[in-house]
Amino acid sequence: MATAVETEAMRRAITLAARGLGATSPNPVVGSVILDTAGQVVGEGWHQRAGGPHAEVHALRAAGERARGGTAVVTLEPCNHTGRTGPCAQALIEAGIARVVYAVADPTPDATGGAATLAATGIDVEGGPLMEEAARGNEVWLTSVREQRPFVLWKYAATLDGRIAAADGTSRWISSPESRADVHRLRAEADAVVVGSGTLRADDPHLAVRGVQGDFTQPLRVVVDTNAKVTRDARVLDDAAPTLIAVAVDADTRHLPETVITRLPRAERGLAVPDLLADLHARGVRSVLLEGGPTLAGGFVAAGAVDKVVGYLAPALLGAGSAALAESGITTIGEALRLDVTEFVTIGPDLRITAYPRPIRPASTEEN
Amino acid sequence: MATAVETEAMRRAITLAARGLGATSPNPVVGSVILDTAGQVVGEGWHQRAGGPHAEVHALRAAGERARGGTAVVTLEPCNHTGRTGPCAQALIEAGIARVVYAVADPTPDATGGAATLAATGIDVEGGPLMEEAARGNEVWLTSVREQRPFVLWKYAATLDGRIAAADGTSRWISSPESRADVHRLRAEADAVVVGSGTLRADDPHLAVRGVQGDFTQPLRVVVDTNAKVTRDARVLDDAAPTLIAVAVDADTRHLPETVITRLPRAERGLAVPDLLADLHARGVRSVLLEGGPTLAGGFVAAGAVDKVVGYLAPALLGAGSAALAESGITTIGEALRLDVTEFVTIGPDLRITAYPRPIRPASTEEN
Repeated sequence: MATAVETEAMRRAITLAARGLGATSPNPVVGSVILDTAGQVVGEGWHQRAGGPHAEVHALRAAGERARGGTAVVTLEPCNHTGRTGPCAQALIEAGIARVVYAVADPTPDATGGAATLAATGIDVEGGPLMEEAARGNEVWLTSVREQRPFVLWKYAATLDGRIAAADGTSRWISSPESRADVHRLRAEADAVVVGSGTLRADDPHLAVRGVQGDFTQPLRVVVDTNAKVTRDARVLDDAAPTLIAVAVDADTRHLPETVITRLPRAERGLAVPDLLADLHARGVRSVLLEGGPTLAGGFVAAGAVDKVVGYLAPALLGAGSAALAESGITTIGEALRLDVTEFVTIGPDLRITAYPRPIRPASTEEN
Repeated sequence: MATAVETEAMRRAITLAARGLGATSPNPVVGSVILDTAGQVVGEGWHQRAGGPHAEVHALRAAGERARGGTAVVTLEPCNHTGRTGPCAQALIEAGIARVVYAVADPTPDATGGAATLAATGIDVEGGPLMEEAARGNEVWLTSVREQRPFVLWKYAATLDGRIAAADGTSRWISSPESRADVHRLRAEADAVVVGSGTLRADDPHLAVRGVQGDFTQPLRVVVDTNAKVTRDARVLDDAAPTLIAVAVDADTRHLPETVITRLPRAERGLAVPDLLADLHARGVRSVLLEGGPTLAGGFVAAGAVDKVVGYLAPALLGAGSAALAESGITTIGEALRLDVTEFVTIGPDLRITAYPRPIRPASTEEN
């Protein structure tokens, strides 16, 4: 059993891990706290960016000699492989750590086994404390490893009667400035932002991140545009962030720069969501913020490819106009996609609801 | 200025007043607390049912001789007229009350003037403390007096994407048992429950109150059924509660008992909402729980006749099926009906949102 001090340190490590959100892809976010032999915190660290040192290495450096004989608390099982940096298991052994407590086991085939390596050298190893919280914090990476496709967060902003636009197509603005700023934070945490061609035509969105502090990479802007209808002057084609236009193999793309095009087979309607996600995964995209519109979101729901939902509900009524979600393949009430709400809060005048479809939840016990 | 003790007593009086919700129509809910000369609570009362004693009378009875020289705290200006019971102003004078503190002035033409009558006898009278809370507690009555029509609460239950039924029309159940029990409480507080003929055909609802404790009157069940399509075996026509079928003047109603019929002029589409509300008001209905469907609710929104909205949002997605609100006459985003959310809470797995359309808010400063 982890001690109360170790559990508290794990809680801190989970908070530290979250600082890496948006900067570590395709790696997980990881946080680590080093306790000395008396249980005092002597080092903290988190994985700050892909290619940089792992969390344990940062924490061990901060602790220095005080790590010897101490305990390393880490949100993810220390890795056993040599990637761009050396294996963490080795670093912990060399620092003279006596005990390692981790929350979530590493499901990656080539990184797993860190716990066994540590135990083989006589280090006391324990996995599991605060596993669920730590897994939730790493939901993007764990889902992408397990599913071999990017984690998909569907975001929508609607009125209380579920409309994302009025009858005449106007939608600026349904949600508040506070909600729109919050969406930029979601974008900053995502590897890619995805919209359909309908949204592109209706709103000409820019999709780049603005007004967000801290370390993040501009997400790849992805337009699902089966028939390559996007025009050369679309704002999404500026150089504020990279852009990818997903079109059908036979689409006429002579008006577009070839570098932004990816060609996918035609599906029954548009492009197949699994093909799109496979393409994005192959490009290193581990998390997708799906921003709409309703038909594209419906395609993702129908494909079982929505892992998380964030809805901004504006306190307004329209009585007409596009609904937030369409064509999801659900025909009767028994087939409704049921969700578990994990948070609902006010964002300015709006309500923000965070929910997870059942039973697709962040990996936890499955991995252990 | 009211003292802290008096303000505390007013808060208590507002709570007492709420006990009368659902039983006092067409009267207001009123609560009263009597403080003796030392500021001790010596009597409490509330208006329990129409025709019964007013709140002040209950409270004075409880206080007995200890009221003499004391303060009467009451949520509404004491009445000055002799209705089914004697005027409260007179009762307060006879009890030897030295000071009267009320929250909301009485806007009724024939009841107003109670404060002046009291002051003329030398009683120290003060209005205003906790006016807003007290007015909110009496929103039904204040709105019906001001607008000369029933207060309308629109209730809906929808998925997060705003659907009240799946594509095939199934809707049992979108919301949870907890939410449905909560709706019975709303029904118990209303004088009438209103649905459209579409809802009747789709759901054959019973609309009577079940499973609610305490004192209430079964609300009048109202079906807006322009062409008298309701069949004789509809559940709403049983004897669990009174029923009213609103039809067009020229509708063929030979299959229905004449006692349940009211005939209204045809409007551009169906029946005009103001005509319906005037008819209900004339029958003594002071509050309406509007339960749907989307078209009828849209008609109420278009008529500016929604005073309050309670939405039950089920954590589910459908992607198809009827939206909660339709045909409200809103065509562009600038015309959206904006609301102020006053509460949002979880009800079982669902979220319940309570909101008021701007600028139609419960009377407060307008009345003073």
